[in-house]
Amino acid sequence: MKICVVGGGSTYTPELAEGFIEHHVELGLSCLSLTDINEHRLGIVGRLIRRMFSKAGLAVQVEMTTDRRRALEGADFVVAQIRVGGLKARELDERIPMRYGIIGQETTGPGGFAKALRTIPVMLDIASDIGQVAPEAWLINFTNPSGLVTEALNLHGDVHTIGLCNGPINTIRRIAGLLQAAPSDISLDYVGLNHLAWVRGVACRGRDVTAEVLEKALDQGDRTYGGSYPVFLREAIEVLGMIPSGYLRYYYSHDDVLEKAKRATQTRAVEVMRIDEQLMEMYSDPDLKEKPDLLAQRGGALYSKAAVSLISAIARDKGEVHIVNVPNHGTFPELSYEDVVEVPCVVGASGPRPLAGVDLPVVVRGLIQAVKAYEVLTVRAAVTGNETYAVQALLAHPLVGQIEIARELWREIRAAHPQYLSYFD
Amino acid sequence: MKICVVGGGSTYTPELAEGFIEHHVELGLSCLSLTDINEHRLGIVGRLIRRMFSKAGLAVQVEMTTDRRRALEGADFVVAQIRVGGLKARELDERIPMRYGIIGQETTGPGGFAKALRTIPVMLDIASDIGQVAPEAWLINFTNPSGLVTEALNLHGDVHTIGLCNGPINTIRRIAGLLQAAPSDISLDYVGLNHLAWVRGVACRGRDVTAEVLEKALDQGDRTYGGSYPVFLREAIEVLGMIPSGYLRYYYSHDDVLEKAKRATQTRAVEVMRIDEQLMEMYSDPDLKEKPDLLAQRGGALYSKAAVSLISAIARDKGEVHIVNVPNHGTFPELSYEDVVEVPCVVGASGPRPLAGVDLPVVVRGLIQAVKAYEVLTVRAAVTGNETYAVQALLAHPLVGQIEIARELWREIRAAHPQYLSYFD
Amino acid sequence: MKICVVGGGSTYTPELAEGFIEHHVELGLSCLSLTDINEHRLGIVGRLIRRMFSKAGLAVQVEMTTDRRRALEGADFVVAQIRVGGLKARELDERIPMRYGIIGQETTGPGGFAKALRTIPVMLDIASDIGQVAPEAWLINFTNPSGLVTEALNLHGDVHTIGLCNGPINTIRRIAGLLQAAPSDISLDYVGLNHLAWVRGVACRGRDVTAEVLEKALDQGDRTYGGSYPVFLREAIEVLGMIPSGYLRYYYSHDDVLEKAKRATQTRAVEVMRIDEQLMEMYSDPDLKEKPDLLAQRGGALYSKAAVSLISAIARDKGEVHIVNVPNHGTFPELSYEDVVEVPCVVGASGPRPLAGVDLPVVVRGLIQAVKAYEVLTVRAAVTGNETYAVQALLAHPLVGQIEIARELWREIRAAHPQYLSYFD
Amino acid sequence: MKICVVGGGSTYTPELAEGFIEHHVELGLSCLSLTDINEHRLGIVGRLIRRMFSKAGLAVQVEMTTDRRRALEGADFVVAQIRVGGLKARELDERIPMRYGIIGQETTGPGGFAKALRTIPVMLDIASDIGQVAPEAWLINFTNPSGLVTEALNLHGDVHTIGLCNGPINTIRRIAGLLQAAPSDISLDYVGLNHLAWVRGVACRGRDVTAEVLEKALDQGDRTYGGSYPVFLREAIEVLGMIPSGYLRYYYSHDDVLEKAKRATQTRAVEVMRIDEQLMEMYSDPDLKEKPDLLAQRGGALYSKAAVSLISAIARDKGEVHIVNVPNHGTFPELSYEDVVEVPCVVGASGPRPLAGVDLPVVVRGLIQAVKAYEVLTVRAAVTGNETYAVQALLAHPLVGQIEIARELWREIRAAHPQYLSYFD
Repeated sequence: MKICVVGGGSTYTPELAEGFIEHHVELGLSCLSLTDINEHRLGIVGRLIRRMFSKAGLAVQVEMTTDRRRALEGADFVVAQIRVGGLKARELDERIPMRYGIIGQETTGPGGFAKALRTIPVMLDIASDIGQVAPEAWLINFTNPSGLVTEALNLHGDVHTIGLCNGPINTIRRIAGLLQAAPSDISLDYVGLNHLAWVRGVACRGRDVTAEVLEKALDQGDRTYGGSYPVFLREAIEVLGMIPSGYLRYYYSHDDVLEKAKRATQTRAVEVMRIDEQLMEMYSDPDLKEKPDLLAQRGGALYSKAAVSLISAIARDKGEVHIVNVPNHGTFPELSYEDVVEVPCVVGASGPRPLAGVDLPVVVRGLIQAVKAYEVLTVRAAVTGNETYAVQALLAHPLVGQIEIARELWREIRAAHPQYLSYFD
Repeated sequence: MKICVVGGGSTYTPELAEGFIEHHVELGLSCLSLTDINEHRLGIVGRLIRRMFSKAGLAVQVEMTTDRRRALEGADFVVAQIRVGGLKARELDERIPMRYGIIGQETTGPGGFAKALRTIPVMLDIASDIGQVAPEAWLINFTNPSGLVTEALNLHGDVHTIGLCNGPINTIRRIAGLLQAAPSDISLDYVGLNHLAWVRGVACRGRDVTAEVLEKALDQGDRTYGGSYPVFLREAIEVLGMIPSGYLRYYYSHDDVLEKAKRATQTRAVEVMRIDEQLMEMYSDPDLKEKPDLLAQRGGALYSKAAVSLISAIARDKGEVHIVNVPNHGTFPELSYEDVVEVPCVVGASGPRPLAGVDLPVVVRGLIQAVKAYEVLTVRAAVTGNETYAVQALLAHPLVGQIEIARELWREIRAAHPQYLSYFD
Repeated sequence: MKICVVGGGSTYTPELAEGFIEHHVELGLSCLSLTDINEHRLGIVGRLIRRMFSKAGLAVQVEMTTDRRRALEGADFVVAQIRVGGLKARELDERIPMRYGIIGQETTGPGGFAKALRTIPVMLDIASDIGQVAPEAWLINFTNPSGLVTEALNLHGDVHTIGLCNGPINTIRRIAGLLQAAPSDISLDYVGLNHLAWVRGVACRGRDVTAEVLEKALDQGDRTYGGSYPVFLREAIEVLGMIPSGYLRYYYSHDDVLEKAKRATQTRAVEVMRIDEQLMEMYSDPDLKEKPDLLAQRGGALYSKAAVSLISAIARDKGEVHIVNVPNHGTFPELSYEDVVEVPCVVGASGPRPLAGVDLPVVVRGLIQAVKAYEVLTVRAAVTGNETYAVQALLAHPLVGQIEIARELWREIRAAHPQYLSYFD
Repeated sequence: MKICVVGGGSTYTPELAEGFIEHHVELGLSCLSLTDINEHRLGIVGRLIRRMFSKAGLAVQVEMTTDRRRALEGADFVVAQIRVGGLKARELDERIPMRYGIIGQETTGPGGFAKALRTIPVMLDIASDIGQVAPEAWLINFTNPSGLVTEALNLHGDVHTIGLCNGPINTIRRIAGLLQAAPSDISLDYVGLNHLAWVRGVACRGRDVTAEVLEKALDQGDRTYGGSYPVFLREAIEVLGMIPSGYLRYYYSHDDVLEKAKRATQTRAVEVMRIDEQLMEMYSDPDLKEKPDLLAQRGGALYSKAAVSLISAIARDKGEVHIVNVPNHGTFPELSYEDVVEVPCVVGASGPRPLAGVDLPVVVRGLIQAVKAYEVLTVRAAVTGNETYAVQALLAHPLVGQIEIARELWREIRAAHPQYLSYFD
């Protein structure tokens, strides 16, 4: 079993490595291959990971190379976690939209749009490489915006792809916490797209506990959800009778979030840059042999858990339910057959299969369909380099919706990333 | 042939009457029945119409009664053009949303929502009466918001209903004007919902002239479209490659329209009230025997033309194409089977039938689906009186989208129309 | 306006020419081009047609050539009426299935299957030629089995195709006869595939007269339908409440039809061969300047009428309703989007468009779906030359259904037409 | 945990009891309730089952009563295995169709049709009782024709229903046998309806072994499948590339099966009657405390296994895959949303959920759709008592297809079961 991590120089990689170490028997892991375009970072991170495997006494081979095709060759699973343009570009994604009265966020809205346009061509190149040197591999995509990137890979990449996010696994944990139950006892009626999802129902060991969960989320949600968006959460539950993904605050409480962001002294990107630098310094210490605590502040909680358990479900043909991003294939009759959605799937050796016949609640249906239309247009822009599609994508986004704003945003986004968006006509 | 006009006391009715007079032979009209809840207005308007028929030397019987069921009895066609709450309520529809940074408009957005909630229960009562005293009649609905009211009638009224708007006929005229062709030579590839529609293609005597029309609309659109929204029109054509309905400026140029409205000295409602009063005074003059010119300023151009030609197409089994509001029935695969849409239909004795297999352009698909979800929830609120659906409908509307705003808007709308919204729980 | 007839050497062609002469003004016909692979027949028929045009005093150019591409060049409409293998092959189509207890028929069952496999590759070649020398032309396909050939052209030919049959126009005439009404006053609710269709409803000038028509068809059907299949017709109407296409007797009264065919002294093919020879002899007479009466016995009544009125509806952008074979495009939700069906379409300059939302009656739904699956597999066999698809197609046909029979039939059919089926692997 | 067996007086019941005894811990079984309309048989079978539980040393309460509602009260699961009209009626089902050249079979063709019409009204009564006295119970339906009865229960019964058959579990065993693997390692790509199903693919521990299985089935199928239909099996695999359900021989080798049945000295019904009598005699022996070997000849192998494991998957929220009969809900896009199909489902506490997006192979699609249309019409006949639907159902059946035969069959079937079909108009 060979696993390849594309973007292996990320400060996240030790988190992932920890999971591989913990489950190496189950996974039957013999080779972990790390690749990155930044040789310096790759070296620092890779050497730490070698020390981690060594400390664990495992004979797993840890490879490092900037030669992507060599790294991919013969891989059974590829985990992709790249960030085209790095955190500097992210800062622009967070700043530019705010000038137009729209929240700036790395996955939602015009920020996510810019990130998608930088990222999709690179991810399609990676998929093309996989198709040639590891055609049977599964590509587990963590690269954000994960749903949108998976939409592009599904339509235009000839490789088995699953879009993964740590959102669903965190949601299950929080709900298990509310019920004081084990996460493995919880199953969710979960509908939507990546970062645009709702929990419609909860079962605990097969018993419907939705009402109890909604009540407890109203009471204790503030604490469980870390106090970061209590009002939004309470209101959404009251109006929808469902638990929304935290990312829905960018829609449902858009103006509040925007106001807070305007008052903030710095963007999240800058904050993460600082943590990232500190982490790289720590990783450089040849005595460090484990993931430092600081990494928790970097975000991406349970990232490793989600990836390892998904890989294991495929490798060992478990037939377990995982919430992942896959083509709709009739699951939601209100979306197109090929639209990528984030839903519970049965995952075995042949990959994830969504369940049939799930009606979208009307109250969220229109928002999902509108965001999906935006995603389809964004992918079209990314694969054609046609500016009209780019403007249309922004126009179709529910947070934009106005023609002048769409045009101006596009002009500014294009100008801000000349290196990555030069493929536009 | 008996035609009944519900809301016959409207100052519009003489416009309609003019059409009936001009085409009385084709229609075979023998009785025109006017009914209204306002006896005073009904008397003034009805007497004018009698004078109009008399001047034309026609033996058509013109009935006036506040007894709706008597008026409807035995009708072949019923034209509904009611305004629940009158122009006073309309003024609130135009004012209230502006306090939340949203345009105020009688059919689009929260204004149309409030109007729909006042109107749907009344229209369902009318439909119920028709079902009992004129079960074979066709209900031609002009009552705004016309698409939303037709959605409600289609799902919950047991009567043959067609939603009609003067928008499509005016669009055809304008495009014919651009081409210096006869309106009857023009056929449109027209997609969308009422007041949310786009012209995707134009044929003149069967020849595709879309490119020519788009170019001319860019050049001369300002004049042809009366100069009222030139920038919006130009921009929309450039970005979409389609001609949008004028109502789309409330989405595509939302902030501009809102700014202008804020600077306006009065609402359109107040303006119309004034015209309306003047018209009623004119109508009261026993020497007036025709529609006065001032009526043109009241809006509703070609209203009569659209109704008469539709009625005639059914009565004489013409098999003509008319653009009307009917259930989707698979026309747009991206919408539900029963969603009411505004599309070209073949109209004969058995009513309108849309054509099969029309894909919605992605750039407008999400907006249409989102507005349709709002409409479905609004109808649900109107027939159940359930406040949650009302808040959900507002939340689902692309111009609202935020929970706090949806809740506050609902509280204010409900409080503003106690008489008409008392059916809510 | 140039019309090209492929298979112009057919004895049918004078029937077609008669229609073109009668309607030459409406059609604006300037050139009629005839092409055939049989130069001798083409000469005889072509010269007769020249005499017919000459007698009518028309200046239309009548071209004859065996060079198909030259004949097609610049055509506005192409009428295809070929018979690959001629009447000799037809005789085999009528004989072979009977050995397996299945009716032998040139369009239905294994006979139609064999004819389709001989014909589809040739028709796709013709379509390819049209695509190159007359890319804007409409191909009006009369070549049998018309629905199946149109299915192949729609999926694999890059040309505007309409499948035409004289069945619907004859049905309208017969029903008009029952009502003593003009055919133009009749409109049908008509569902199904070519030679597998049912009249579900009848309107006369927009009035629903279905019950009256069913009753009269029960009373007088024997006479109106020529007495050829009275019992079948009566029974089908009683059980289905619909009027079936005459071809449905091959299913609904299969065993009776088979018994009669076994007792017959000769096949229809032999009969037609005799008539055909006589016709060619008559046509050779340089004094003959019109269609002889004997042609009526050849079959294909109103063939000319159907073609001329369809061409005229397109050429003059009439927006009339014609019952033709076109892709389903959601018309019948129970069939696939691209399945070719025979339904009422609105026909204008942009071709035929079916109406939306027609549910198939359950009692015929399964038969239609089963025959369509057979058609899809037959087309697949014809374009791949794969024997497995050929056997699967026969197995999927409701009149076959058994594996051994399907295999033996295929062996015999293949052996019977070595010249035309040599493309199979 | 209370399980109620309706039709508890069947000689099958000890087989079922054996399963309950073996898995009583897993099931948490506290009460087994048997009900039947035949008190005598119920007594004999019930007392044997008490002796079986007693021998096993279990404290499970075994109730017997002819009062169905009392038996059902508070049940968690209801297993229905009734036979309306008994084996005498079955003999007619096997004999009558043969007079019309059609195989006689208790679930397929006109025999299954007659059985369905006798059975559906009784099963809907049982469902109604369950709805009142055990509204949360799951109804596991074994009553044949199982798919058709489940179709009726799904549309017209207000109870959680799963249609079960021992076919899938036996198929898995046979295939596991071919591979010398454990049944639990096998998962099937299985498509179709009950008794009209195909194995399209086989995975063993997640590895695709379809080609190997097809090859082995061709080589060893005769032995594995008991030698009962080797030619049919071989031929079907060669032509389809899939393994058919054994019941498909009634279609694919119809004439052979019919010939053999004509030569048989007795029907299967008479054979079963004899075994049944012997079994009842054995069961009457107060010293018998276990299922006798003879029961294996009665048919229904692994019947108990299938039921126990399904009940356990629900009761213990296992999330296992079982192949059962459930509403389609978009699984096969080629069938209607509510059509009951037999497919792999994930089964947990909330019941079975099919997977999304499974295309039906064209070669079997038409047959499945045709049989489904027959089923829909049969259910319609059973719930309306309308003779026209009954004749239409027979006509729609692929083994009938002719009107005269459909009518005569209906007359004879109706006359043969006056007691059970008196509800027809």
